Amino acid sequence: MNGGDIKKHVEAVRRRMRDNNIGWLLLVRPANVTYTTGFEGSDSWAVITLRDVYLLTDSRFSEQAQQQCPHCKIIQRNETLGKTAAKLADRSGSVRTITVDRSISLNDFETLKKNTSIRIVTSENIVESVRSIKDSYEIAAIRRAGRIANKALKQILKYLKPGVTENELAGILDLQIRRLGSINSFNTIVAFGANASRPHHRPGSRKLKKNDTVLIDFGARYKGYCCDITRCFAIGRPSALYKKVYEAVKNAQSAAIKMIKSGADICEIDAAARKTIAECGLPVYGHGTGHGIGLEVHELPSVASGGNRGKLESGNIVTIEPAVYMPGRLGVRIEDDILVTKNGCKILNV
Amino acid sequence: MNGGDIKKHVEAVRRRMRDNNIGWLLLVRPANVTYTTGFEGSDSWAVITLRDVYLLTDSRFSEQAQQQCPHCKIIQRNETLGKTAAKLADRSGSVRTITVDRSISLNDFETLKKNTSIRIVTSENIVESVRSIKDSYEIAAIRRAGRIANKALKQILKYLKPGVTENELAGILDLQIRRLGSINSFNTIVAFGANASRPHHRPGSRKLKKNDTVLIDFGARYKGYCCDITRCFAIGRPSALYKKVYEAVKNAQSAAIKMIKSGADICEIDAAARKTIAECGLPVYGHGTGHGIGLEVHELPSVASGGNRGKLESGNIVTIEPAVYMPGRLGVRIEDDILVTKNGCKILNV
Repeated sequence: MNGGDIKKHVEAVRRRMRDNNIGWLLLVRPANVTYTTGFEGSDSWAVITLRDVYLLTDSRFSEQAQQQCPHCKIIQRNETLGKTAAKLADRSGSVRTITVDRSISLNDFETLKKNTSIRIVTSENIVESVRSIKDSYEIAAIRRAGRIANKALKQILKYLKPGVTENELAGILDLQIRRLGSINSFNTIVAFGANASRPHHRPGSRKLKKNDTVLIDFGARYKGYCCDITRCFAIGRPSALYKKVYEAVKNAQSAAIKMIKSGADICEIDAAARKTIAECGLPVYGHGTGHGIGLEVHELPSVASGGNRGKLESGNIVTIEPAVYMPGRLGVRIEDDILVTKNGCKILNV
Repeated sequence: MNGGDIKKHVEAVRRRMRDNNIGWLLLVRPANVTYTTGFEGSDSWAVITLRDVYLLTDSRFSEQAQQQCPHCKIIQRNETLGKTAAKLADRSGSVRTITVDRSISLNDFETLKKNTSIRIVTSENIVESVRSIKDSYEIAAIRRAGRIANKALKQILKYLKPGVTENELAGILDLQIRRLGSINSFNTIVAFGANASRPHHRPGSRKLKKNDTVLIDFGARYKGYCCDITRCFAIGRPSALYKKVYEAVKNAQSAAIKMIKSGADICEIDAAARKTIAECGLPVYGHGTGHGIGLEVHELPSVASGGNRGKLESGNIVTIEPAVYMPGRLGVRIEDDILVTKNGCKILNV
C-alpha cells in the first residue's frame, strides 16, 4: 500500500475514534496494524492517536518497518509489547484513557494493566468496521488476487490425472500462484471424493481415481489482500447424485448472489441459499453462507443467520459459499467473491 | 498420534493439574488441544478434568473429531466457545473453579465470565511445560520431519540457478515437501543476497544472480510435529566478508551446541553463541539463540538471555540459530534442531 492509502485508512479510523470519544487506540490484531501502518511483519502493535501513528516492533523488523512505514513513529522495543505500550502512554503525559481491542490476549491485557495507572477500556471492531468497506485500491487488489487465482487454477488442470495425490496437487497449485508473483492466502484445501464432505479437510495422500470428484478451496494474496474461491470438478462421469448436488449448490449460490446489494438483509441472503438446498431434499451446510474478505480471509461482515446480522453496505466484499456435505459420499461447495454495490453486486474473481 | 500417546499426554497434564490443585482445565490454544485430544482442526477448545476429556467443536469438524478423538467426549456447539464451555461447567454441578490459560483472548474470557457464576482463575504454561519434554513418539516424529526437510532441500538444489525468484524457489521447496507426504511447518523463507539481513523476510520477485547468496529457513511437519532448519549457500564465489561471517556463525552455533545437556544454563548457552560472534567483530543478532519446537514451531523452552531462563531438561528439543545481519549487505543464519539428553545432545535433522 502506498502512503496515501494508509493515510486515508488512518483518517477513517480517526473519524470512528472521534465518534466513540477515543483518543488513544491500541491495535494488536496484525491486520489492523497493517491497515493503519502498512507494516506487514508480525509481533508488532500500532497506536493511533488523533495526531500520530506509532508502530511498536522489535529489532527483527526494524529494517522492514523503516521501509514500509514512512509515516509512522517507529518504537523499537526491548520489552514485552504490553510494557512498551504502557510506557508510551505514560510518557506522553496527556493520555487519560487507553482503548484496546477486545481481541487482545488476557495475558497481554494484564501486562498492560500492570504497567500503567492510566485507565484502560476495551472496544470492539473499531478498525474492523472501517476495514469492511473497501476503497478502490482494495477492490482492485482483491480483483487482481482473483485473477491470479483463476489463472493458476487453469494452469494446473492438466495435473488433474489419476494418481496425483491431494497433497501434491495442493503444492502444484501453490507453486503456480507463486510463479504468478503471488502467494496463497490460506492453506489450500484439495479434497478428493468423499473427503470433500469435511469443509476443512487437509490435503493428504489420497490419490485421484479414474472416476472421481475434486474440491479445491484456495486463494491468492495480492498486495496483502486475499481472494477465496472454491471449485468442484468431476473426473470421468459424475454420478447422478453428484450432478444433482452440484446443481442445487449452484442454484443456492445464484439465489443468494441475486439478492446482494447495498441495504440487503444478511439473514435473508443466508436463508435464501439454505432454502434452495433444503427444497432439493439435501442436507443444509452447518457453516455460514459467506464472510467478508480483505487483509484477512475472514473478516466483517459475516454472511450468516442468527441474531441481527444487519445489512450489507456498498463496498463490502463477501464470499458466497453454500455447500452440501454427505459424509462418506461427497461434498460440494461453490465459492466466489462478491463486491456489494449501490444497486447490485459484482463477482470479482472472473 | 495414537490413543496411547494421547492418554499419556493427558495423564502428564493431570499430574500437573493435581500439583496445582486444578480440577477443571479449559484449553484454548490449538496445540494444547491437539496434544491432549489428538484433534487437528481449528476453532475448538478442550476441557480436561480428572476423569474426562471434552472436545468443544462445531459441525464443520464433527466428522474429523469423531475420527481423531475416540477417547474424548465430543460437544458439538451451536454457540460461542465461551458460552459452550460455561454451560459444560455449569451442567456438571460439581465444578468449583474453572482454570483457563492466560493465552485466551480478553473477548473469549469475558464471554466465559458472563455466562457462568463459577469462579474463574487463570494459569500459565500448564500444558506448555508438559509439552516441552518430548516422549519417544514425539522425538521420532520430529526426527522424521527433519529427514523429510533434508531430502526436500537436497532435491531442489538443482533449481538454484540464476533467474529463479525467491518466491518460486520457496514454492518448489514446499511442493517437494508435499511430494514427500508432508507439509511445510511454517511459511518458507527464501532470501537472496542482502534480503537475508531481514530475519523474517518474505520471498519476493528478486531473481538469483550468477554470483549470489541464498538463505533458506524452512521446515516440514510430520504427524503434527515440526522441524525448523536454516541453511545458507553461496552461488559462484562468495566474498571474503561472506566467508568470514559464515565461519563465525558456524562457530557460534558449535559453541552453543557443545554446552547443551540436561541441567545446562540457558542464559550461558545464549551468551556463548553471542560472544563468538562479537569476538569476530561482527554485529550480534537481536533475536533469541533458539526456541523449543514440537506441535508449534515456537514453544518452550526459549533459548534466550534476559531474566532467569532456567535450565535445559532431558527431552527438550530446541533450535540453535545464531546469525549475523548486515543490512544492505548480507545475512547468515544457521539453524538445527537439538534433542537435549542426560549427558549431551543429539542433532535431530541429520
